[in-house]
Amino acid sequence: MPQPFDIAVIGATGTVGETLVQVLEERDFPIKALHLLASIESAGASVPYRGKNVRVREVEQFDFSQARIVFFAASPAVTRSFAPRAAAAGCTVIDLSGDLAVPHVVPEANAQVLATLKAPVQVASPSSSAVALALVLAPLREQLGLVKVNVTVAMAVSALGREAVSELARQTAELLNARPLEPRVFDRQVAFNLLPQVGKVDAQGHGVLERRLVSELRELLGLPLLKISVTCVQAPVFFGDSLTVSVQTENPVDLVAVNSALDGAEGIERVEEGDYPTPVGDAVGQDVVYVGRVRGGVDDPCELNLWATLDNVRKGAALNAVQLAELLIKDLL
Amino acid sequence: MPQPFDIAVIGATGTVGETLVQVLEERDFPIKALHLLASIESAGASVPYRGKNVRVREVEQFDFSQARIVFFAASPAVTRSFAPRAAAAGCTVIDLSGDLAVPHVVPEANAQVLATLKAPVQVASPSSSAVALALVLAPLREQLGLVKVNVTVAMAVSALGREAVSELARQTAELLNARPLEPRVFDRQVAFNLLPQVGKVDAQGHGVLERRLVSELRELLGLPLLKISVTCVQAPVFFGDSLTVSVQTENPVDLVAVNSALDGAEGIERVEEGDYPTPVGDAVGQDVVYVGRVRGGVDDPCELNLWATLDNVRKGAALNAVQLAELLIKDLL
Ligand SMILES: NC(=O)c1ccc[n+]([C@@H]2O[C@H](COP(=O)([O-])OP(=O)(O)OC[C@H]3O[C@@H](n4cnc5c(N)ncnc54)[C@H](OP(=O)(O)O)[C@@H]3O)[C@@H](O)[C@H]2O)c1
Ligand SMILES: NC(=O)c1ccc[n+]([C@@H]2O[C@H](COP(=O)([O-])OP(=O)(O)OC[C@H]3O[C@@H](n4cnc5c(N)ncnc54)[C@H](OP(=O)(O)O)[C@@H]3O)[C@@H](O)[C@H]2O)c1
Repeated sequence: MPQPFDIAVIGATGTVGETLVQVLEERDFPIKALHLLASIESAGASVPYRGKNVRVREVEQFDFSQARIVFFAASPAVTRSFAPRAAAAGCTVIDLSGDLAVPHVVPEANAQVLATLKAPVQVASPSSSAVALALVLAPLREQLGLVKVNVTVAMAVSALGREAVSELARQTAELLNARPLEPRVFDRQVAFNLLPQVGKVDAQGHGVLERRLVSELRELLGLPLLKISVTCVQAPVFFGDSLTVSVQTENPVDLVAVNSALDGAEGIERVEEGDYPTPVGDAVGQDVVYVGRVRGGVDDPCELNLWATLDNVRKGAALNAVQLAELLIKDLL
Repeated sequence: MPQPFDIAVIGATGTVGETLVQVLEERDFPIKALHLLASIESAGASVPYRGKNVRVREVEQFDFSQARIVFFAASPAVTRSFAPRAAAAGCTVIDLSGDLAVPHVVPEANAQVLATLKAPVQVASPSSSAVALALVLAPLREQLGLVKVNVTVAMAVSALGREAVSELARQTAELLNARPLEPRVFDRQVAFNLLPQVGKVDAQGHGVLERRLVSELRELLGLPLLKISVTCVQAPVFFGDSLTVSVQTENPVDLVAVNSALDGAEGIERVEEGDYPTPVGDAVGQDVVYVGRVRGGVDDPCELNLWATLDNVRKGAALNAVQLAELLIKDLL
């Protein structure tokens, strides 16, 4: 039995934070004390862990020297405020908020980066779609020679947190009952609709999330010059991000070899040919990225197409972060 | 006032057929007699036209010599059965079912083809996504030099007809009321989900609709060798197909020139930079393809990205077919 650790989860009442606590429990992460933190609004609330309700406290009041590993699963602004305190207290920081300019790691793709980190360790779990793409493309990188990756990401509303989840439910009920729609989190109707822009865009028209996906994927694959075209679309789906991926390759695509590389890879489940995976039917609640519709081009031998879907909250965030913690306690702490 | 024509609409009680009758009325198409036809099941039903309810009759009983122009807006099987009768009677046939191996035309893209047709004229209105892509890419063809087009099509359920529309509504209500789900048209839950396969796929894994889009787009653009990668995804949207498009170009992309070509093109409405069009908010009920998120690559000068959305039933089918009829009566009949 490994020595247990003091853990803090910031944003423990959120979509990702709650799942993170669940995953820590499911995977029997060796925990001595579990500090669940959020804003003052949720102080006093509780989150279930090992059959008990653990009280949530205000992060502002937290003494970071009580924690060995801190998960940042609140907003980037919260990470910006408190990560320096965590580092000063010598905590290992795992950032899920996208705020810290530290290495991004997906264990199945670039775990080797962890060995290069210096104490106090700071590491980031990338965006959910970067997790998916890294898992799918890492095992194909050598055999295909990636020239360009074209991706459309259909994001679940849960990617924007618990209020966005409520908003889709509320909008849907309002529409079915012919009541007037009152968009709040989204700036317009998301139910039965598609919004081809998620968050802010820059002067070149690229979304913040799109830019982030490009830089994270290059980093995860160790291909800083890889060409990537990405569009993020908000879909009326509660949980599960989905990606249509079309890869331009250097080498002609050998589908047998592609399928066998995918089947042999960690963290991926390829569904049978003829079948296809969906966010609701397959991805939600699962620990792998589901892959289907693997096929070549209509007449381009250097083209690979596929579809991938994963639980954005679980495999795309909480589980990846816990996997990072598992590797860090094995090798570093 | 042009000489009026005898018109028949087969599938007049369907999603496309009903809209087609509406569009004929709105555009004041010169009609002498309007024959509305469907299966025996709907014989006796009626469809509104110019303030009256026009009785629907069984196509099987129809004497095609009564019609000058026949729109086929039922299933491919119905077209296969009755198009020969229409042709034998000398009717001009406009096929919306995708069954006939005849030229596909989108007036704004390749109207010139109409002049080459011999009597009895048979012409096809292509799939909704081919209409959208042809409208958007035709005005850019010369300036960009299209090397490869990558498309993800998010299809509305109405693309599969009125029963699919009812199914999304029913599934949504069942889920909101926690009743067991009974998929019928779709083979699984489509509400709050995405299905990355629409209809059958072939031995290579390509969907029938995907293959069709490739061949139609090549034909419409007059680029038989154009490389196209396409994935059709079923979205939980009632009306309005949406496309994420990423084009690999020969020439570096000049966004000012691209925007001005799009703004000058017929059948397209580009929304202001910073804004974006959605199926529900923009496309539905409209006569144009809405385009937004026009932008270059993150760092590839020969890449153009954009989003397009159109009313699949109206601009993608009924209106395009009526536009074809308008040109045919002007030039040919
Ligand atoms: N959702 C995903 O799929 C996903 C995937 C990858 C990464 N992420 C990232 O993970 C983070 C959390 O996302 P989420 O989806 O879980 O959001 P969420 O459901 O909205 O939860 C936000 C969490 O942050 C806490 N919080 C808000 N303001 C705070 C403050 N001032 N101080 C301390 N805690 C505060 C909230 O606590 P209160 O209860 O006190 O408000 C709540 O626990 C975000 O940075 C997001 O970008 C999300
Ligand atoms: N929906 C779109 O967005 C779209 C776009 C482009 C092309 N299309 C094509 O347009 C056609 C119609 O689609 P839709 O969406 O309108 O389908 P729909 O809503 O299901 O309507 C089908 C129509 O076909 C009629 N029909 C069925 N069986 C028949 C038979 N044996 N003889 C005569 N009529 C028969 C139906 O009449 P009853 O009332 O008698 O059953 C109904 O009028 C299809 O080929 C489709 O692929 C559709």
